[in-house]
Amino acid sequence: HLIKVIFLYRNIVLNNPGKRNALSLSMLKSLHQDILHNIDSTDLRVIIISAEGPVFSSGHDLKELTEREGTKQHMDIFKTCSEVMTLLPKLPVPVIAKVNGLATAAGCQLVASCDIAVASEKSRFATPGVNVGLFCSTPAVAIGRSLPRKVALEILFTGEPMTAQDALLHGLISRVVPEDQLEGETLRIAHKICESSRAVLALGKATFYKQMEQDIGTAYQIASQVMVDNLALKDGQEGIEAFISKRKPNWFHS
Amino acid sequence: HLIKVIFLYRNIVLNNPGKRNALSLSMLKSLHQDILHNIDSTDLRVIIISAEGPVFSSGHDLKELTEREGTKQHMDIFKTCSEVMTLLPKLPVPVIAKVNGLATAAGCQLVASCDIAVASEKSRFATPGVNVGLFCSTPAVAIGRSLPRKVALEILFTGEPMTAQDALLHGLISRVVPEDQLEGETLRIAHKICESSRAVLALGKATFYKQMEQDIGTAYQIASQVMVDNLALKDGQEGIEAFISKRKPNWFHS
Amino acid sequence: HLIKVIFLYRNIVLNNPGKRNALSLSMLKSLHQDILHNIDSTDLRVIIISAEGPVFSSGHDLKELTEREGTKQHMDIFKTCSEVMTLLPKLPVPVIAKVNGLATAAGCQLVASCDIAVASEKSRFATPGVNVGLFCSTPAVAIGRSLPRKVALEILFTGEPMTAQDALLHGLISRVVPEDQLEGETLRIAHKICESSRAVLALGKATFYKQMEQDIGTAYQIASQVMVDNLALKDGQEGIEAFISKRKPNWFHS
Repeated sequence: HLIKVIFLYRNIVLNNPGKRNALSLSMLKSLHQDILHNIDSTDLRVIIISAEGPVFSSGHDLKELTEREGTKQHMDIFKTCSEVMTLLPKLPVPVIAKVNGLATAAGCQLVASCDIAVASEKSRFATPGVNVGLFCSTPAVAIGRSLPRKVALEILFTGEPMTAQDALLHGLISRVVPEDQLEGETLRIAHKICESSRAVLALGKATFYKQMEQDIGTAYQIASQVMVDNLALKDGQEGIEAFISKRKPNWFHS
Repeated sequence: HLIKVIFLYRNIVLNNPGKRNALSLSMLKSLHQDILHNIDSTDLRVIIISAEGPVFSSGHDLKELTEREGTKQHMDIFKTCSEVMTLLPKLPVPVIAKVNGLATAAGCQLVASCDIAVASEKSRFATPGVNVGLFCSTPAVAIGRSLPRKVALEILFTGEPMTAQDALLHGLISRVVPEDQLEGETLRIAHKICESSRAVLALGKATFYKQMEQDIGTAYQIASQVMVDNLALKDGQEGIEAFISKRKPNWFHS
Repeated sequence: HLIKVIFLYRNIVLNNPGKRNALSLSMLKSLHQDILHNIDSTDLRVIIISAEGPVFSSGHDLKELTEREGTKQHMDIFKTCSEVMTLLPKLPVPVIAKVNGLATAAGCQLVASCDIAVASEKSRFATPGVNVGLFCSTPAVAIGRSLPRKVALEILFTGEPMTAQDALLHGLISRVVPEDQLEGETLRIAHKICESSRAVLALGKATFYKQMEQDIGTAYQIASQVMVDNLALKDGQEGIEAFISKRKPNWFHS
């Protein structure tokens, strides 16, 4: 069972701890590529994004944002970053951020942009751009949609870190555990997701983000049609039949 | 005093505990009818929705969602369900969900769709559609608007239940009490509502939902005009006069 | 150092405790004027709104809302009030509410409309308009955007007060401290804000509110362009250079 599961989730690890896992342009491009690699394989069911070292990610590489680098490169960096962040909700599989340390600026934005976020108790979250004269305006797109407005503005204006417990309290992350349980808890959630039909999760995830940008009447119209479409999926039929026959479903993932 | 109050609130009880209060098509139609019964009577001031047995509601009746039943029936079910859910915010009186047990899928959606929700400590909330190959996409319309996005997605993707305390922490419900205080606390809130003018509450409730779907500038324009209209109501004038004369108001409910 | 800071933040104090700091039309006009006074001075970096006495503010002066005063005056009051509330997010400096006591109706709306809100543990928040036949529809514009919907509706329908701890839990305020630390904690946040570039904060604040009313794709387009613009600011360049040179930045506030 465990061997099978190994093939079902993809573990993407930010692996430049010496540079605090800065989201340099090359790191962003790697991340984009690694996320999309074989994304349509039915053997891929969930993506976990984690990091090596005590810093999950410190955000953009400030050396790439000097005057000398020029406006064109700056725009390229922010465009690439926004593409990575907005790609995550569009993926056909759930994405879990597994955070064990400090996530700041675009690093905090990356956590906020995942579907689910599990963090160890020692983790911290901050948007300290004001300290270097660069307000975290792009991180604020994701963070402002994850936290109550006042809490978001306080961390944006002061640059001060928020504890994992406060991040949970305010909705930036979905779960906090002691450090020695972080791996186990993240995999528990990943395994649970792997027990479901990939096709059903893909339809559900896409619909969730789509309807959330609509008024409630339009949202219900979209979602009601999707429920009917979901039932017409092979796995929709299999699931209901298995339930009624009191047996385990055998997913086709289609 | 107590006898009078009995006529002021309507207690709608989901009463098919043997079938875990499944929201079958007939149950949904009954609910719709019971909710609208004499809805314009000034003797009705608040609706309480509760349930018999250990399950508040398990959501749709999966036997009605088999392939054999056909797409037309499926669509009828989701359409009727959405009508019930979107009816609640449109009612001229507040609706309180009183939850003592498990609320799942469309049952959880029903809780999320009420104006106020009081739950006992043992209550649990879940969207386990993924387990039967049917993602809770329609429940997600209400749940995604009640919980932080990450918390909503975690329960939608895993199907795992959330405790009453976590549901309160994240905003799905507004109050948690020990089981033996559930009745008392719900009635206390209902009685408090009955002390106010029905006309004033109706105008306020309608305006709340209307302005919340607007940008803040438009929202203030709508609400400012409503404040003036509210003051022009018989009860608006009575309330201000009573306050200034330091006496209790006598509501006309108009 | 302390003497310099005195000139950097503006302390606006609601100073009519005998009338529970009611937001009368004249109080609203004073507030509007005091907020805008020299607002473009680079010596102003943060505004703190606090109050004298045990009531932060009790909201509108009901004596100005009698039938005798007439519809035109009523409309003038709500229009002026909305102007003050919507002015706060448009200001080029952060606004902190410092609350030590009861904030009700439009007083609660004022707290909800600030960028940051720090409250003492004894503070309470309520929207008791229903008690006087005037539903808090304009306060609900700000409160409905600060609290989960069910929590907002429960306090709007019942008029009952919420504790500071619950207000923090649900996102109405960003920080709660014991009464004897309220001044210190508020000034600590204000001082931290004063350490940053005024121009950077102004751009960041304006962008935050602008992008939050957009869909996420448009929000990222706006914010990415702003990041480039921010880097082109004198203080954007100074901040990055100082960081790379491992020295303290010297802000120009432009």
